[in-house]
Amino acid sequence: MSKTNKKNIGVPTIGVFDSGFGGLTVLRALLKQMPHARYAFLGDTARLPYGSKSRRTIAKYAAESAQFLVHEQGTEYLVIACNTASALALDAIQEAVPVPVLGVIEPGAQAARAASKTGDVLVIATDATVQSHAYSNACRVLGLHGIERACPLLVPLVEEGWIADSPGHSVTAEVTSQVIRIYLDQLQADAKAENLHPDTLVLGCTHYPLLRPLIEKVLIQSGPSGIRVIDSAEATAAEAARLFTLQNNPQRCHPERSRFSGGAKDLLLTEAESDFIPNIRCFATDSVEKFERLGSRFLGCPTGPVELVDLGG
Amino acid sequence: MSKTNKKNIGVPTIGVFDSGFGGLTVLRALLKQMPHARYAFLGDTARLPYGSKSRRTIAKYAAESAQFLVHEQGTEYLVIACNTASALALDAIQEAVPVPVLGVIEPGAQAARAASKTGDVLVIATDATVQSHAYSNACRVLGLHGIERACPLLVPLVEEGWIADSPGHSVTAEVTSQVIRIYLDQLQADAKAENLHPDTLVLGCTHYPLLRPLIEKVLIQSGPSGIRVIDSAEATAAEAARLFTLQNNPQRCHPERSRFSGGAKDLLLTEAESDFIPNIRCFATDSVEKFERLGSRFLGCPTGPVELVDLGG
Repeated sequence: MSKTNKKNIGVPTIGVFDSGFGGLTVLRALLKQMPHARYAFLGDTARLPYGSKSRRTIAKYAAESAQFLVHEQGTEYLVIACNTASALALDAIQEAVPVPVLGVIEPGAQAARAASKTGDVLVIATDATVQSHAYSNACRVLGLHGIERACPLLVPLVEEGWIADSPGHSVTAEVTSQVIRIYLDQLQADAKAENLHPDTLVLGCTHYPLLRPLIEKVLIQSGPSGIRVIDSAEATAAEAARLFTLQNNPQRCHPERSRFSGGAKDLLLTEAESDFIPNIRCFATDSVEKFERLGSRFLGCPTGPVELVDLGG
Repeated sequence: MSKTNKKNIGVPTIGVFDSGFGGLTVLRALLKQMPHARYAFLGDTARLPYGSKSRRTIAKYAAESAQFLVHEQGTEYLVIACNTASALALDAIQEAVPVPVLGVIEPGAQAARAASKTGDVLVIATDATVQSHAYSNACRVLGLHGIERACPLLVPLVEEGWIADSPGHSVTAEVTSQVIRIYLDQLQADAKAENLHPDTLVLGCTHYPLLRPLIEKVLIQSGPSGIRVIDSAEATAAEAARLFTLQNNPQRCHPERSRFSGGAKDLLLTEAESDFIPNIRCFATDSVEKFERLGSRFLGCPTGPVELVDLGG
């Protein structure tokens, strides 16, 4: 996966960070937007999950991970592909490294604003993300009302692979659908109790894009809710590409963020490049085997060999 | 919870260690066997779950935790109330501290040998415990055949509290029952493929005792399997009490392990002590709030205030 190609010379290296490998769904979305960029992905797997840890601990781990990507891998731009770290440690990361940092919360909230007509938005995420109220705060700034709920069973269900709604897997996918149904029913009951009328559901965890087909099916089965699903991973990749373009338009961008010589449009694939191999290096702090085994499910193609790094702890 | 009483003077302090708070089910079983001992419980919550980490990382974390309990809390005996650490790090812990160390794997296997007539034993546990084959190895030494399966969804289901089979909670308990059914069906199919006839099921994770009623119900619903459930937590507490008694019988124990002045019988409650308050200090490396909130569910009584400790990392 680390083969270079003619377009890689002079293009930026984008660092993508997650506590695990769920953030590979963000890398997958970034590859669609900017396939010709170089990518260094770090999963801090020795210390996952961040979702159940305190703000102080998450900030320390995330800052160390960001420093590895910037100082040791030379990344010039950082995407925090982890809702928990974006919610609890974005400031700490920005203080720890001298490059632009983009989290997943704000792009997700922005996409919800673009999609919602009622202004009432449901958010599902991990415990720590919900406890931080990062999504409801980001919604409030944009004039939306966010109703959040922690769904701690969804990550292990994705990692068990109980997500394929195909004949051989219908029993396990039915369990996952039932779990989704219970969580969404509780969320809708919360909304009803506050007399809100949500029309948008934000997937506030990087594991959840793999559940999108089941979630959309459950929403349809529950009746004509008209609820639209927003994927923070896609919203973040689109925002990253937009910033690249902005950064190369001196009239529209902040001078200290103009670090790149090419905009996102220079990173797109041409029609002649159907045999294109993305330029990705993956690093993990532990569980290289599990990362390689499960990572391709999230990335949508093989991760290639994953390199073990030691960040202490 | 740290009130002393007249019997506490001169009694040993038993250290109980887990990566999280699931090991409180072992402490609960120890309290039944030896209510008058002093206990120091450490949950290494900043670095949980151990179940998805490598042997090297688990050994490092477990040794640091054991050293805290022995060197800083003065515990004279150590119970590793964590299947993953018992499976992957018992040697490392024994090397790291100068006190007797008891894990949960061997007592669980011993109890299975006492219960099984066919000699074929089913084991459910975390990923790392199963990958270590610690239970099947312990079974083999005792002349049993162990058939293991990782059940990574069961811990989060317990932590979500989807375990109460009462009217208000029947929908969530049904999800948990269905997950148990899928895992046990797969395990029974594995046994059938090897022409084995299991009659015993070992709960190889300290969270699982809370699922015991649902597991036994699923086993009954599946037909007359006659499968008996073995709880490693109870088996370990019984073995700890037996070792205490042995250690005070110079004819039967190793001299270097005779550290205590009283046997387990001196640690039992008398009938006059119905208002007894156990002597427990709980420590966690993170998530004190979550520990206090969920811990009582595992311990069967309030944990009292949990003290935060920093082991680095």
